[in-house]
Amino acid sequence: MNAQPPRPAFAGWLSETNDITARFLAAGGVPGLINLAGGLPAPETYPGEAVAALAAEAARESAETLAYGPIHGLPALRDAVAARFSTPEMALGRENVLITTAGMQGLSLVGQVLIEPGQAVACQSPAYLGALDAWRPRRPAWRPIFPERNGFDAEAALSGAQFGYVVPNFSNPMGRLVGLERRLELAEAAEATGTWLVEDDPYGALYYDSEPLPRILSLSGALRPGRYRGPVVYLGTFSKEIAPGLRIGWAIAAPEMIEALAAAKQGADMCTSPLTQKIALRALETGLPEAIRPGLLSLYAKRRDALAAAMAAHLAGLFDWEVPVGGMFLWATAKDPAFDTDRLFEAGLEAGVCVTPGRVFDPLGEDRRSIRLNFTLNDEAKLEEGVRRLTKAARAM
Amino acid sequence: MNAQPPRPAFAGWLSETNDITARFLAAGGVPGLINLAGGLPAPETYPGEAVAALAAEAARESAETLAYGPIHGLPALRDAVAARFSTPEMALGRENVLITTAGMQGLSLVGQVLIEPGQAVACQSPAYLGALDAWRPRRPAWRPIFPERNGFDAEAALSGAQFGYVVPNFSNPMGRLVGLERRLELAEAAEATGTWLVEDDPYGALYYDSEPLPRILSLSGALRPGRYRGPVVYLGTFSKEIAPGLRIGWAIAAPEMIEALAAAKQGADMCTSPLTQKIALRALETGLPEAIRPGLLSLYAKRRDALAAAMAAHLAGLFDWEVPVGGMFLWATAKDPAFDTDRLFEAGLEAGVCVTPGRVFDPLGEDRRSIRLNFTLNDEAKLEEGVRRLTKAARAM
Repeated sequence: MNAQPPRPAFAGWLSETNDITARFLAAGGVPGLINLAGGLPAPETYPGEAVAALAAEAARESAETLAYGPIHGLPALRDAVAARFSTPEMALGRENVLITTAGMQGLSLVGQVLIEPGQAVACQSPAYLGALDAWRPRRPAWRPIFPERNGFDAEAALSGAQFGYVVPNFSNPMGRLVGLERRLELAEAAEATGTWLVEDDPYGALYYDSEPLPRILSLSGALRPGRYRGPVVYLGTFSKEIAPGLRIGWAIAAPEMIEALAAAKQGADMCTSPLTQKIALRALETGLPEAIRPGLLSLYAKRRDALAAAMAAHLAGLFDWEVPVGGMFLWATAKDPAFDTDRLFEAGLEAGVCVTPGRVFDPLGEDRRSIRLNFTLNDEAKLEEGVRRLTKAARAM
Repeated sequence: MNAQPPRPAFAGWLSETNDITARFLAAGGVPGLINLAGGLPAPETYPGEAVAALAAEAARESAETLAYGPIHGLPALRDAVAARFSTPEMALGRENVLITTAGMQGLSLVGQVLIEPGQAVACQSPAYLGALDAWRPRRPAWRPIFPERNGFDAEAALSGAQFGYVVPNFSNPMGRLVGLERRLELAEAAEATGTWLVEDDPYGALYYDSEPLPRILSLSGALRPGRYRGPVVYLGTFSKEIAPGLRIGWAIAAPEMIEALAAAKQGADMCTSPLTQKIALRALETGLPEAIRPGLLSLYAKRRDALAAAMAAHLAGLFDWEVPVGGMFLWATAKDPAFDTDRLFEAGLEAGVCVTPGRVFDPLGEDRRSIRLNFTLNDEAKLEEGVRRLTKAARAM
C-alpha cells in the first residue's frame, strides 16, 4: 500500500501541554537518581495489610462493589464525608457531596462545568501543575492571583471570574499557608461577588508544627445558617491520608454544583469503582486515617527538617526559601534574578538529582528562577545527598 | 446577609445534557419496578470470592498497588492486553495500549484529543448514550452514519470527519452485528481517508449463537505488516467480562494516539487505580474471564430467548424487532410511525416497567418510535412480567 494519508489534527490544547510529569516518571526509572521532583508519599506509610483485609471484605459484597455504582458515589460514603466535614456552624448533607476518582478528577470536572474558551480563571500563582493540565483542554484565560501577598484584594481577584482557585494549606508548589484572616476575606469575597471559589485541599492533614486552620469552606458555611449553599467548591482526597492507589476523592459544594459535576462525571468515567469506595468507607469507619497519621506526621516532619538543614548547609548562598510548616514541598527562589532553573533541571538530571523547575507551575510559563523540592518520598540520607548533587550542578552552571 | 449574587453560568453543554441515566438509576430504587432500561450485567455473575482473593493479594503489594501508578497503566497489564489482542497478522506492543478507568473514560479521552467545537464526528446512529454524554462538552457536529444498512459507503461516511464511531459487536442500542465485509470496508476506508475510526467493543465476548467475527482493529492491522500504526482506536473493558465495579478498560491504537490519550488522561484522573489494575492483571493471568464465560453466555442466551418469546407473545402487533445474536439489548420499532416512545417511557413507569426511549440514542434527538430493552439483568419470570406491563401501557396509549 502507499503512504498513509495525513490524520485529522489533534485538538489544539495538546500542543500546549507540558511533558514534565512524563519526564519525572521516566526519571524515576533511572538507577541511582534521587527524585525530589514528584509529589509522592513515602510508600512505607501505605497500610497494605489493613487495606488487604478491607478489600477482601468489600469484594465479597459483590452485588454492590463489583457492580456499576451510582454516579454520585456510594450513599454511605457520601454521608461519611458529609459528617466528617460538617462543623458546628455548617451542616453538610449527602446532596453536598460527590465522590471523585481522586482529587485530579475533581479539578477536571470543575473545568468541564465552569470553563468556556476564553473565560477567566483566577488562579493562585504559582499553581498546581495538575490543575493547569486539567483545565488546559477548556482553554481558559488565566488570571494569576497572589493570596499570600500583602495587599491582596480578594474581591478584585475574584470579580468577573468563573471561579477562583486556591490551595490554602501548603499550596503546591510553594508549601505556604494562607492565613486565617485572608481565608475569611476569600470566603466573604466569594459570597459578595458570586464567583465560585475552588478550595483544593490535598495536604490539609499534613500540619507538622501547629493545629490546622479552619477551611475556607467552613468559614463560608458559617456566613449563612442551614445546609451549605455557598460558593466554595472544596476538593479533598485520601491520596495523602491513606494511599493514592485507592483513587478516592470528593467534592463538597452547593447541591446545584454537585449536580453539574455529576453530569460531567457521568461522561468522564460513569462512576468511581465501588470496590475502592467501599474500602475507603470502611477505612473511615475503622479510623484508619487517624491511626496512620501520627507516624506519617512524625516521619514527614523529620524529613522536612533534614531537607531544610541540608539546604541551609549547602544552598544558602544561591537560593532563598521559607521552611514550610506542613505539606510536602519546599519552594526555593534563586538570589540571582538571571538564574535559569530550566537549565538547573537539566544539569540536576546529569548530576543524578531531579527537581521541578518553577516554570511549569506558572500559568503564563515565565518563571525561570524557582524550584520545588519534595521532602516526603526520600529518607534523610537521600535528601542530604540530593541537595549535595543539586548544589554541585548549580555551582557548575 | 442579603440575597446571594448570581453565580457565573455553567458551561453551555450542561443545558443540552439528558437526565435519562439519572432517571434510570432513580427508577432502580422504586419498589417492584422491573428495570429493562439499563445496561447492567446480572449481579449473580460477579466473581466475588475470586476477586476477594486477588484483591487481598494485590493490596499486600502496597508499594506498587497503593501508590500512584504510571499514567499509561501498569506495564504488565499493558503487555497482557497487547498479547491478548495481537493476532497472527497484527503485532501489538505495550506502546499500543493505554489502560483507562473503564470504557467510558476511553470515549471521554477520545473526545478530549480529537474534537474541537464544530468538528465532524461520524457516529453510528442510533448511538450509545454514554458516547454522546462523553463528547457533548466538546461540542462536535454530529454526522449520523448507518453501517448496518445496505448501500453504506464507508469512505463517504468517514471522509473529512475527525473520527468515525462504530460498535460493530451488538451495537448499543440496536444489538446488531456489523458483518465481516462491512468491517473490512470500514478498515480500508479509514486507511484510505486517514480518518480515525473508534471501534467500541464492550460486548465483544457476548456472542450467543456463533463464533466472534474479526475485530476491525485486526482487519486494519492486517493491511500493513509490523507493529500497529493504523487508524483504528479500539476501546475495550472488563465491565461485561468480569465486573463493572473494577472500572478497568483499555484503548489500543497507534502509539501517537496512545500518547495523546495519555496526555488527556493525565489531566482527567492522573492514573487508574493500580489496585484494581493489579486485580484485573491477575484475573487475566489466572483465566478468570474464560472461567466465567460459559455460565455467563448460557444465562444471557436463556434470558434473551425469554424476552424474545414474551415479545412475540404480546407485542408482535405493535412493534417490529430482530432477535439479537449477542450483546445485552433488543431494539424494537413501533409499526405505527406516529407512535411516541417518549410517552411509552412515562406510561411504562406508571405500569411498573422501565424501558429506554429511542430518542436518547439519536444524536439529533428525533427518534420517537423505538425502544431498547435489556435482557441480561432480570430473570425469565421478570422479563415476561416486564413485557406484560409494557404491553398494557402501550395498549392504553
